[in-house]
Amino acid sequence: MSTGALPGFRDFYPQEFAERAALARSWRDVARRYGFTEYDGPPLEPTELYTKKSGEEIVGQLYAFTDKGGRAVALRPEMTPTFARMVAARANTLPKPVRWFSIPQLFRYERQQRGRLREHFQLNVDIVGEPGVRADAELVCCALDVMRSLGLTSDDVVARFSDRRVLSLILLNHRVPRAALPAVYAVLDKFHRQPRDVSAEKLAAAGLTTAQTDALFADVDTVASTGGGISPATGDAAEDRAGAEVLAAIEQYQTHIGALMGAPARDWVQWDLTIVRGLAYYTGIVFEIFDRRGQLRAVCGGGRYDGLLAAAGGPDLPGLGFGMGDVVLTELLRDRGLLKPDLARLDYWVAADAVDAGSALAVASIAGQLRRAGRSVEYAFRWSSLARQLKAASTAHARRAVIVKQGAAGSGVVTVKDLDTGDEETVRLESWIAQA
Amino acid sequence: MSTGALPGFRDFYPQEFAERAALARSWRDVARRYGFTEYDGPPLEPTELYTKKSGEEIVGQLYAFTDKGGRAVALRPEMTPTFARMVAARANTLPKPVRWFSIPQLFRYERQQRGRLREHFQLNVDIVGEPGVRADAELVCCALDVMRSLGLTSDDVVARFSDRRVLSLILLNHRVPRAALPAVYAVLDKFHRQPRDVSAEKLAAAGLTTAQTDALFADVDTVASTGGGISPATGDAAEDRAGAEVLAAIEQYQTHIGALMGAPARDWVQWDLTIVRGLAYYTGIVFEIFDRRGQLRAVCGGGRYDGLLAAAGGPDLPGLGFGMGDVVLTELLRDRGLLKPDLARLDYWVAADAVDAGSALAVASIAGQLRRAGRSVEYAFRWSSLARQLKAASTAHARRAVIVKQGAAGSGVVTVKDLDTGDEETVRLESWIAQA
Repeated sequence: MSTGALPGFRDFYPQEFAERAALARSWRDVARRYGFTEYDGPPLEPTELYTKKSGEEIVGQLYAFTDKGGRAVALRPEMTPTFARMVAARANTLPKPVRWFSIPQLFRYERQQRGRLREHFQLNVDIVGEPGVRADAELVCCALDVMRSLGLTSDDVVARFSDRRVLSLILLNHRVPRAALPAVYAVLDKFHRQPRDVSAEKLAAAGLTTAQTDALFADVDTVASTGGGISPATGDAAEDRAGAEVLAAIEQYQTHIGALMGAPARDWVQWDLTIVRGLAYYTGIVFEIFDRRGQLRAVCGGGRYDGLLAAAGGPDLPGLGFGMGDVVLTELLRDRGLLKPDLARLDYWVAADAVDAGSALAVASIAGQLRRAGRSVEYAFRWSSLARQLKAASTAHARRAVIVKQGAAGSGVVTVKDLDTGDEETVRLESWIAQA
Repeated sequence: MSTGALPGFRDFYPQEFAERAALARSWRDVARRYGFTEYDGPPLEPTELYTKKSGEEIVGQLYAFTDKGGRAVALRPEMTPTFARMVAARANTLPKPVRWFSIPQLFRYERQQRGRLREHFQLNVDIVGEPGVRADAELVCCALDVMRSLGLTSDDVVARFSDRRVLSLILLNHRVPRAALPAVYAVLDKFHRQPRDVSAEKLAAAGLTTAQTDALFADVDTVASTGGGISPATGDAAEDRAGAEVLAAIEQYQTHIGALMGAPARDWVQWDLTIVRGLAYYTGIVFEIFDRRGQLRAVCGGGRYDGLLAAAGGPDLPGLGFGMGDVVLTELLRDRGLLKPDLARLDYWVAADAVDAGSALAVASIAGQLRRAGRSVEYAFRWSSLARQLKAASTAHARRAVIVKQGAAGSGVVTVKDLDTGDEETVRLESWIAQA
């Protein structure tokens, strides 16, 4: 019998749990400040919830099986389908916009590689019922404020955003055939992970002329350096009007982000035409947060998915959301020395220097009183020398020891020792406990 | 496509999530006061972790399947095997006693009945490395202090405890053949859920004479009413010496509980010879917490399992623990009017009475500043009348509104309105935010 977890699954010993808890605390705190309310769904769902709406990659990695009742079920690989299902079920009675968040554990059967896990925790934040771009700004700022609350600055991370509607307008403007667009998106998706000439070769293979590729690269550079500066036109009046609206919305998006963050938008966000999120359900602005050193995969990703609620059997409500996993974020925080586990110290260790039954009961009674006053307290279950008890107190990282001296159990007088400084004082228990 | 969860699984909408969160907060707070440290393991484990050590009932209800790598895996039906596995893996380096707790979600494929779930959350608290009975007292007091922290009193709940070693001594004392003991245990396990004459009939079927049954019932009554008062003897000197030690330990257990709880032990615990826990791995004192009205199944159960670590492939260390599920406890709290969901109110709603872009940016900027000061804040994503914005504020249960008046966006002056009392004051933003 192995004493290890399954491959790709983590045991959270107290140290690792404390790291996870610190992250969850930041997630909850920021989501709360933004007025989001927590929900949760089942970790097991009908398989069809994913096969009908998730991307191919997700479906290929499902932990799916047949339960004892003959149902096709799967461990949840992402939260959005559950969120859409739950909102769809109550869409008519929920006040809009719906502002919810959740911290589910998610499961994917990925091919086992070093450092690749089969489960992770993910903050999911979603807004439903609001089509305006200020909601998009609100969403990305919530993700960025998580970064800020963890001690990361705009020197450490940046949100790169884009809108596929603009990209398609630009490509049509450069007379790239509509049929070639998916291939171009796939090349751009890897833009930052490959040399530019590799991208150019692949674009040529996708049917772009050198002039078209150069023009596209020029637009990518202009947008990245100025946060705008393009005005693509297809010649189709309706399409161009829609395009102009998207461009105006993106400008408003950046202005609103600046106001919410209390800092120039370009400190925290960068319009990047190469951001093409994989999931099929995105319809508007999408974003990903990266560490600026480019060492890690995206820390967070999300965007607008206006058709999803209707696809989930609900009413046709606009929606948007992001997911932020714990694994890459924890790597980044560890790398920057910002991983601060929630390991609380023990407030008191209660000890006695005698073996008599009265002392043992006095120890238990004091422990009980301190606990009822909200303090964390331990004591030895068996008699050992005072020196050994104080050693155990120190192993347990107790701040202070309360020592019951021989014969004093009935007197109501104890010694309180600060285990960091060694300072001792003698106190009357009754009056001291009230302010311990 | 259904918008519901699988049968037996719960969707936690914000209200239900807030109830679950309130319970988890109490669990964590009490565990912390007792010096327990949180850990977690994977929700998916090798199936053999359960087939080798859990009871038959658990194995029959496993959510088990074969993963894509051909491994037999199961959703965890209980936490103790994972705990034992994790402790066994590091048994030599962990300081003893190990004092850990966890709040896993557990899964059992039970036959679907009204109100029967296939998942629940369970507080698990365990101590490893301490054979003495004070650890048993510590454990049950931790469970009882959870009750107390939730507002339940000793008039609402009681911990019934027993020790199978004493029961076997009593039965041997009454000359019940050793081979009949398992059948007698099974009858006693249902003692409180059936009339006494039904128990008597079943004991007769198990081979007990009327005199033996009467003597057993007399012992049950004596123990229940006095918390002791029996001195069974088998005639076997070694067995009787061991029995006397167990009886002395049970007396010490009760005394220690009284000291820890700051109340007579019999307020909170009752020695009850009919407590026979089902799981095979218990070796000493076991307990279950019941509501005194007897309307519900046990709220909590646990006990000493000294052989379990060795069985998990670890060293032979004594251990004890309990599990407390969320379902029965939530029913009990709801019934007593003690279910207090953690639904935080929104601190501020920021509104404007004008449609200009300056006002919208002022709203966003104030929202950002208040959030950076730790407050929870919402605002409207689109312009609507001030009355509608304040209505949205009230729907969101905001405490206060901050109102940017037309033309005042640049002046740094805003109106703060208390939405409960209707009181308004005009403040200079900069100085006010510092203490908002």
